[in-house]
Amino acid sequence: MDLSAYLEADVGRGDLTTELTVPDTDGSAYITVEEDCVVAGIEEAETIFGLIGAKVNPLVRDGDRVKAGTRVMDIFGPLRGLITAERTALNFLMHMSGVATVTSEAVDAADGKVIIAATRKTTPGFGDFQKKAVTLGGGDPHRYALDSMIMIKDNHIAACGSVRAAMERMSKASFAIKVEIEVQNIEDAIVAAEMGADIIMADNMGPEETGELRDRVKAINPRVLVEASGNMDLEKLRSYVGKADIISMGCLTHSARSVQFSMDVC
Amino acid sequence: MDLSAYLEADVGRGDLTTELTVPDTDGSAYITVEEDCVVAGIEEAETIFGLIGAKVNPLVRDGDRVKAGTRVMDIFGPLRGLITAERTALNFLMHMSGVATVTSEAVDAADGKVIIAATRKTTPGFGDFQKKAVTLGGGDPHRYALDSMIMIKDNHIAACGSVRAAMERMSKASFAIKVEIEVQNIEDAIVAAEMGADIIMADNMGPEETGELRDRVKAINPRVLVEASGNMDLEKLRSYVGKADIISMGCLTHSARSVQFSMDVC
Amino acid sequence: MDLSAYLEADVGRGDLTTELTVPDTDGSAYITVEEDCVVAGIEEAETIFGLIGAKVNPLVRDGDRVKAGTRVMDIFGPLRGLITAERTALNFLMHMSGVATVTSEAVDAADGKVIIAATRKTTPGFGDFQKKAVTLGGGDPHRYALDSMIMIKDNHIAACGSVRAAMERMSKASFAIKVEIEVQNIEDAIVAAEMGADIIMADNMGPEETGELRDRVKAINPRVLVEASGNMDLEKLRSYVGKADIISMGCLTHSARSVQFSMDVC
Amino acid sequence: MDLSAYLEADVGRGDLTTELTVPDTDGSAYITVEEDCVVAGIEEAETIFGLIGAKVNPLVRDGDRVKAGTRVMDIFGPLRGLITAERTALNFLMHMSGVATVTSEAVDAADGKVIIAATRKTTPGFGDFQKKAVTLGGGDPHRYALDSMIMIKDNHIAACGSVRAAMERMSKASFAIKVEIEVQNIEDAIVAAEMGADIIMADNMGPEETGELRDRVKAINPRVLVEASGNMDLEKLRSYVGKADIISMGCLTHSARSVQFSMDVC
Amino acid sequence: MDLSAYLEADVGRGDLTTELTVPDTDGSAYITVEEDCVVAGIEEAETIFGLIGAKVNPLVRDGDRVKAGTRVMDIFGPLRGLITAERTALNFLMHMSGVATVTSEAVDAADGKVIIAATRKTTPGFGDFQKKAVTLGGGDPHRYALDSMIMIKDNHIAACGSVRAAMERMSKASFAIKVEIEVQNIEDAIVAAEMGADIIMADNMGPEETGELRDRVKAINPRVLVEASGNMDLEKLRSYVGKADIISMGCLTHSARSVQFSMDVC
Amino acid sequence: MDLSAYLEADVGRGDLTTELTVPDTDGSAYITVEEDCVVAGIEEAETIFGLIGAKVNPLVRDGDRVKAGTRVMDIFGPLRGLITAERTALNFLMHMSGVATVTSEAVDAADGKVIIAATRKTTPGFGDFQKKAVTLGGGDPHRYALDSMIMIKDNHIAACGSVRAAMERMSKASFAIKVEIEVQNIEDAIVAAEMGADIIMADNMGPEETGELRDRVKAINPRVLVEASGNMDLEKLRSYVGKADIISMGCLTHSARSVQFSMDVC
Repeated sequence: MDLSAYLEADVGRGDLTTELTVPDTDGSAYITVEEDCVVAGIEEAETIFGLIGAKVNPLVRDGDRVKAGTRVMDIFGPLRGLITAERTALNFLMHMSGVATVTSEAVDAADGKVIIAATRKTTPGFGDFQKKAVTLGGGDPHRYALDSMIMIKDNHIAACGSVRAAMERMSKASFAIKVEIEVQNIEDAIVAAEMGADIIMADNMGPEETGELRDRVKAINPRVLVEASGNMDLEKLRSYVGKADIISMGCLTHSARSVQFSMDVC
Repeated sequence: MDLSAYLEADVGRGDLTTELTVPDTDGSAYITVEEDCVVAGIEEAETIFGLIGAKVNPLVRDGDRVKAGTRVMDIFGPLRGLITAERTALNFLMHMSGVATVTSEAVDAADGKVIIAATRKTTPGFGDFQKKAVTLGGGDPHRYALDSMIMIKDNHIAACGSVRAAMERMSKASFAIKVEIEVQNIEDAIVAAEMGADIIMADNMGPEETGELRDRVKAINPRVLVEASGNMDLEKLRSYVGKADIISMGCLTHSARSVQFSMDVC
Repeated sequence: MDLSAYLEADVGRGDLTTELTVPDTDGSAYITVEEDCVVAGIEEAETIFGLIGAKVNPLVRDGDRVKAGTRVMDIFGPLRGLITAERTALNFLMHMSGVATVTSEAVDAADGKVIIAATRKTTPGFGDFQKKAVTLGGGDPHRYALDSMIMIKDNHIAACGSVRAAMERMSKASFAIKVEIEVQNIEDAIVAAEMGADIIMADNMGPEETGELRDRVKAINPRVLVEASGNMDLEKLRSYVGKADIISMGCLTHSARSVQFSMDVC
Repeated sequence: MDLSAYLEADVGRGDLTTELTVPDTDGSAYITVEEDCVVAGIEEAETIFGLIGAKVNPLVRDGDRVKAGTRVMDIFGPLRGLITAERTALNFLMHMSGVATVTSEAVDAADGKVIIAATRKTTPGFGDFQKKAVTLGGGDPHRYALDSMIMIKDNHIAACGSVRAAMERMSKASFAIKVEIEVQNIEDAIVAAEMGADIIMADNMGPEETGELRDRVKAINPRVLVEASGNMDLEKLRSYVGKADIISMGCLTHSARSVQFSMDVC
Repeated sequence: MDLSAYLEADVGRGDLTTELTVPDTDGSAYITVEEDCVVAGIEEAETIFGLIGAKVNPLVRDGDRVKAGTRVMDIFGPLRGLITAERTALNFLMHMSGVATVTSEAVDAADGKVIIAATRKTTPGFGDFQKKAVTLGGGDPHRYALDSMIMIKDNHIAACGSVRAAMERMSKASFAIKVEIEVQNIEDAIVAAEMGADIIMADNMGPEETGELRDRVKAINPRVLVEASGNMDLEKLRSYVGKADIISMGCLTHSARSVQFSMDVC
Repeated sequence: MDLSAYLEADVGRGDLTTELTVPDTDGSAYITVEEDCVVAGIEEAETIFGLIGAKVNPLVRDGDRVKAGTRVMDIFGPLRGLITAERTALNFLMHMSGVATVTSEAVDAADGKVIIAATRKTTPGFGDFQKKAVTLGGGDPHRYALDSMIMIKDNHIAACGSVRAAMERMSKASFAIKVEIEVQNIEDAIVAAEMGADIIMADNMGPEETGELRDRVKAINPRVLVEASGNMDLEKLRSYVGKADIISMGCLTHSARSVQFSMDVC
């Protein structure tokens, strides 16, 4: 995992302030989390500090639930480097922990009865880290990119003419990847299940209809999975528990509030 | 502005779904915003669609205040490409508009009497776009990276021993960049102003003390600027109007909620 | 598809010969195939010639079966560039057509009754093009890289202790990707099928045993696929038709003989 | 030698299988060759395993002739990494050893009386490794890229009008690189030799005519070298021994069969 | 500081000479400066030698004034690597020391009464090293790139219509960066100073007029700086001492003579 | 030729000045040379301006001798871009023309009787452009990098023990590249010539001895070339005319004074 581009983007041509004010010696520091959260980004922070020649002693692990005030890592190394890398390391921690924490809240609300999944509504350039944070929060990353899975959405179906026509095209797909299809009604879901879809997404469908859809397609293929989607929040999510196998939520990645961390030199 | 890495990260080895289901013809689409907001990311979306050979006709400009339901751009080009690039283009729009919108709310609260500025608490890999969105929302980007300005913070002062000692080191700084220093009390602010600081940051200081600090340093150098900082929100911000020249807010970039946009093929 | 690194690797600091001997004018050329084959690499050749500012008029399409002597494309553009890019374009055509041709021979031998699939035994730096050529020859690319699929092989099973233990770990896998597992006997295949494997690879197993394995696992899950593997050649392949759903062959990519093409300036 | 791009291409966003099934401990493995061959790629495999933090103890050297069943290297390091890097390391070994082995067969056939040389008919993205493997097999890499040498071929001569006219252009060439020219008959060879060509390639000329050409040009300049070329195989090659100084063979790189290797964790 | 691209540009596909003639053992070498100079490039040479696995023991520090014949560093490491990297390391030393030396001559001529500054007239691809060498020679780097500062030059003023109009646009500039403006006469300088310019450049103005300009603008804002510019040489420079705060000199970077260094293997 | 990295290095995160002061319209400009010179860098300037979407109409060609005051190109395109790219384009012109001009002075001094060649004493990151400028000035680029030629220098000979031993190693060198060797006396030159060296460098040898050396080695091989080297200047150079075939001069690239150019918007 090469994170040097992220550090370089924040440093530019050099940390002039630190060069002028901080002696060229070794030092130590520690990072504290300022809010209760599920922590994520420990590995990334360790990698960032490694870039400036420092060693990190992690005191918690990615995915741990921690209390406000917990010391999450000690760091030893070139003092100037510690200060130069501080912000980039904290930025990874604060954003990834934000995503992991909101995911864990959704996972708790789901009570183990439904998979909480991310979407591709990620921040450009930071998506893989958000997907990892979703996993650390107990969620499922869903597909990472357009090549990870076949996912037939409304525009694709419109181009083919019907769900049936779209599924027929899947005979040319590799056996190695799964096929998901978005449907607007139960009839289309049945067609998709009969034609071999691995996952059926019920788009913006109410919980009752989703539940009925799920019963109908499981009767055709008990291994097919049903995904509910559409501006989910914690409240709405609860109403789908028991009605869907997967609930996907864009807000996990596109609108997670950051968790505050701070670094102290000691 | 080369955004191809962002698109490639979302596409991977190819958009298999679209290749199998969408004909290789030209088509058109349009993007609609689903919430009232200050729009940002129009240029970036245009660049993203340009990468797949499409032309964009923007219907609003970056920085415009728009109503929910406004059509923000029309797009014409290879139909497959439009669908492949959709998510990346929307991700730029939704995140950047989120930042611009929350910034504009802070700017409105400031009522033209204080500069609203961003911090370096940005999302790794996306910081420059967040800084641009802050500007589009009426805010100030503050420094982009560690090389943009000298900014002497607590750890730097600790390494030097005192504000005076830290400012003495500034005789070695290039005349070409500004010097900002963070202070904990009015006495240090006076020292900093006397020794030529361009900007003085009152860190986590109450509005009254900040106002007094500002009066004292302006008496020394009327051009010096005073920046208030420390977990600002809209409420807290209002109490500093008239007491500071600049209010910096990490939440503009680290916790902005995304704005929803959608694309329709037509 | 940015192929400029491939052309640059062959050009280095400049095509000195052409600069000294060829006038700086436009010209035209055509490419002829010298053997019967399934052609592949037309798109890549077009992209390579595009890099030097030339236009290509393809006379056949990727995946076409062509006879020795067929003219496959006309090219118009800067004469120096045509000659400079010739070798790189031909190298794509000759290697990709070689892979497509040997794949089509295997596909013909399989007579539509079994999927012919590639492996990850590709040439470093050229694997994606070989996978594409397999597809053009009528085969299946199988997984592109380690992230495309879960594929549990002997070393993974050894690390877990048993097929059952390995499959138990799959409860942590994302629902979005398929799970394939390599087995040495029918008992393990049954365990894998019961525990939800999508594909079962019968490693170096004879055709009869493979056929029996297939019958047994289909009884558990009719959608499970059985892959036969192990130094397959055309002869051996035929004996597996009707016994397996997929036959994977490393030789498609690691040892395909190139097809000869030549370019003439006219 | 930075081979990280080759490993990353095979890993993608992560080796999910290994992360889920293999413990995060150190381990050891060894690689065995399964066929008699001239081994090549040992250095590259060592570099690949180094990328995941492992140490390699090579048991043979690049260029050694080895018997089927020979253990070629031991590897110690992070167990997950060993399994993740296995395929990429083996792919280097199998392709490079294939090229080295076929080269050594040609070199043996040449019996020390003629140089066996490669051409630029290499696999895009892998050419430098194929050239190195040719050298390890006892052959000559010939020019690496268009900038390594001046090589005047039929299209260049056509653009100038004659061999004489083409050679006249060479007065503008740097003294630092050699000049080779392709000729169709003895008369042109004589002109080229008189005008200072370093190497003369007799294109698709029979062995007797090549021999006569060689005698004629050596009379003009005893240091000039004669290269025979044109779909050479081992049989044909033997007939040119004693008639040419160099025999170049595209098949060494474009159609070499891979050698099988396997890795065992122990 | 990753300098590998610089070394690779000089090595290309390999140092064939050294591979053929030098044994694969460790060795040592030292570098001597052949002229009196201010040395610069020690850090860069150390980084270059580090790339081939060697350790450097620096005997002088960047910025030191050294006499001809001084041994500036000892180097220990792989003998082949030392010889391969020699030229690149020496090229950094000779060019950077050339820049540092000419800068120190200008700084001496200025006698501590005026800042000697570089310009953006640097060698493409080497500018950051030249700026660093200027600093080591006692000069000021001035802005590194177009984003480091606002610098309003003749073309910008022409586009706005007047100095006043150009300065009015500065209300939209970030508070975080300085504003410099180039003026042709004292009247414009006064406008600029009144409107908040941080630095005023007197373009090709005589020393007397520059001095008067400086007195006038200091009366308005004692912190404003005056920069004299325009084909300065050492002679001309002296006449501006006491008349300007800064003298910028393109010749420091665009025409500095290199200092000779040599490496001996021992 | 992708020069975008050079422009980006000078622009950084944006040309703030131009964005604030110059309207977003098209415009035109022209470039004038301010000194008599051999012009070089026209192609590079054209490429740089092309990056910002402008068209260049060159009024002189690279390699032309021009008088002070000559208008060398007209440029049309986005006005902001013209101003942003100005400095980078001029930096190419001024440095490359400086190298071409000093080279042409040496070539004139040589009076067509000896080749004037560059060395590898180039500016890191700019060497290929300096080599091109040497060619435009009428000189020979000599080898571009360590892989362009075999060049056996003192350290290599020391490692082998003698010139003879070093030349013996050349039996393993590819026939495709030339072999140059540096000698300290005539005896070694004779050995080198007898053993097949293509070029013999007489290192820091006086003109008379060099002339004698040349006569002796030409008697062995009339095609061998003799290169004189060692801190050459124009004066010294003249004394070697008629004594050597090649004179190499580091000062062409390491210490060339820049030529002044300026751009005017019109």
